[in-house]
Amino acid sequence: MVYERIPDWAPVARSRAHELVIQAIEDQIMAGALVVGDPLPPERELAARLEVSRAGVREAVRVLEGQGVLRSRVGSGADAGTFVAALPDGALTRFLRLHVALANFPFSDVVDARVTLERSSAALAARNADAAAIAVIGEALQRGAASDVSPDAFNDADTAFHVAIAEATGNRLVSSMTIAIRESLTARILTALHGHADWTGLAKRLHAQHEELFDAIVRHEPEVAAELAEHHIRFADQELPRMA
Amino acid sequence: MVYERIPDWAPVARSRAHELVIQAIEDQIMAGALVVGDPLPPERELAARLEVSRAGVREAVRVLEGQGVLRSRVGSGADAGTFVAALPDGALTRFLRLHVALANFPFSDVVDARVTLERSSAALAARNADAAAIAVIGEALQRGAASDVSPDAFNDADTAFHVAIAEATGNRLVSSMTIAIRESLTARILTALHGHADWTGLAKRLHAQHEELFDAIVRHEPEVAAELAEHHIRFADQELPRMA
Repeated sequence: MVYERIPDWAPVARSRAHELVIQAIEDQIMAGALVVGDPLPPERELAARLEVSRAGVREAVRVLEGQGVLRSRVGSGADAGTFVAALPDGALTRFLRLHVALANFPFSDVVDARVTLERSSAALAARNADAAAIAVIGEALQRGAASDVSPDAFNDADTAFHVAIAEATGNRLVSSMTIAIRESLTARILTALHGHADWTGLAKRLHAQHEELFDAIVRHEPEVAAELAEHHIRFADQELPRMA
Repeated sequence: MVYERIPDWAPVARSRAHELVIQAIEDQIMAGALVVGDPLPPERELAARLEVSRAGVREAVRVLEGQGVLRSRVGSGADAGTFVAALPDGALTRFLRLHVALANFPFSDVVDARVTLERSSAALAARNADAAAIAVIGEALQRGAASDVSPDAFNDADTAFHVAIAEATGNRLVSSMTIAIRESLTARILTALHGHADWTGLAKRLHAQHEELFDAIVRHEPEVAAELAEHHIRFADQELPRMA
């Protein structure tokens, strides 16, 4: 019985050790001493330098692999080992989306952050969108045009429209953040759309705002596009019932 | 020898399984079906429902614990098990900082993203900063005032100044993103500062721009503060030698 309680403590110690290892690896990356493609020192050496167990190093590597920061290649020779990896763009969107869904930010904070990023996305899209990017935005716009569109189909079309604008910016960092915030709001927006008294009237007005924003992007008017994007998001925020 | 090669395949299969489990858990969170504090179904049940091994579920849980999305409590009774956790604000800053450091975004993308967020932070700080927040910004400002400040000390003071403005916004989401982007640039900014031909002259001009921005925040002038923030960041970007 006494013996059974001992393992309760082990994960804590191990957890502290692996957190120290994670911090040490991140410090190297932030200082520019470890860059994408660099190998991590061997497990045994890292454990000795950081004065932690090899199990602690292994656990840290697993966590960082799960986040896409490290990648291990098995085998022998120079190709084998654990390397610093470039996170795919999707990883940032995914993490930010999850964070916004979980972190319980006040809804007005999310709306203000979204206004900031959508203004920037709209302006950059108006500046940089080429014919192909404009065609993608236009296609998404049309999907929200049908007068009998359902809340779910409208939400899909709305997401596609805002994602297409973000992707037309030519700025992958602004685009990842903009998309993440729009996607993090899907559950709340869907609930609000389903609960709206005049859903079809609202869909028409939101679609008309999309058309105006699209026109400003087509005419390459960044400041008009930014203003229209902000007006559209604040209008939607007022119209859709606030969630807790 | 042949036997030794067999384990090469195991991690791949396990990795696919655990990625499926991670995706399934994230889908539940994004749909609002799992919220902070909710318990995850028991390991055995989750493995059966998703048709993966219990090892796959365990690995997914470990990865999501490493990201702060899940938290496990040992013991017995209703308190024990694996629960959905609220990510701390620091987790977003940490991930975004790491992502920007690793993702190899064009430098101009990072600068444009930073301008977007620092404009917003400066405007929100000018609107919302109370006396205590203004005192913290003022203290950071003073740290960059000494004429003989070193590049490292100036970088620390500059980071503290921009972090203090972000924290004065009253918007934790905008603030996390702004801080992450400033911190992701530390290594590049330090290298550039050390390599600048007229470092003390540059530090004086950057400090003077900080003073102007601080004054606009103290006078509660959001639009002036946003313009000054953009001017300051674009000036620094032009002055500091571009890194690859």
